[in-house]
Amino acid sequence: MSGVQVYYSALMQGLHLTADCHQCQCDPRWLEDADLLGQACLDAVRRAGLQPVNQVFHVFPPTPRGPGGVTAAILLAESHLCVHTWPELAAVTLDVYVCNFGADHDAQAQALSDALIALLQPADLRRAVMRRG
Amino acid sequence: MSGVQVYYSALMQGLHLTADCHQCQCDPRWLEDADLLGQACLDAVRRAGLQPVNQVFHVFPPTPRGPGGVTAAILLAESHLCVHTWPELAAVTLDVYVCNFGADHDAQAQALSDALIALLQPADLRRAVMRRG
Repeated sequence: MSGVQVYYSALMQGLHLTADCHQCQCDPRWLEDADLLGQACLDAVRRAGLQPVNQVFHVFPPTPRGPGGVTAAILLAESHLCVHTWPELAAVTLDVYVCNFGADHDAQAQALSDALIALLQPADLRRAVMRRG
Repeated sequence: MSGVQVYYSALMQGLHLTADCHQCQCDPRWLEDADLLGQACLDAVRRAGLQPVNQVFHVFPPTPRGPGGVTAAILLAESHLCVHTWPELAAVTLDVYVCNFGADHDAQAQALSDALIALLQPADLRRAVMRRG
């Protein structure tokens, strides 16, 4: 069975980075405008050397506290990027998940996460790293 | 500052469940047919009591080893479900992320994850639980 273990571990091994961003100091438009945020995410994906294959952006309706949040999910050849925003809290969660199928994408995942955090400028940031597969 | 902490923690607190499924014993079509898998995911989301708001399904091209994999991302009012399949490995990764904004969705997230694992029938399963926010 150890042969099987090595076989699928090597192919399915991946890295999942999360970043829970609080007190974002960026322009509030980044948390409210799905097209603006989505395009920035696509640009960041490409600049990090990852390959977008499809995407969906969604805007939630306004609440009594202000504009609704945005979700951007970008499907990658390497797995996915998901971004959720809460404008009323100046908060955003990021998920960058890459599978290292065919190549090691750890550095690209880290670069993508770092780029989005730099855009959002959270004063309080909680990151986690998970090995997948 | 402790008051601020309590404020945003209560609103942004969430649960992220991952399941890395190996040696799936289900019909291989579930890992190859994006519409079939996507519809099953949507049904499972609704049965779990969560609210889909948008989705994107993507099929990867076939490889010399067989049919390509599928990614299904379903955006939820409560956050997201992402599913990636590797038919050639009989492997699937699941991400169920719910934010407990307005209500506690932990039980629904667990039910959704359990339902998809029951569908896929992995002989080898690696689960993780992450608190977010």
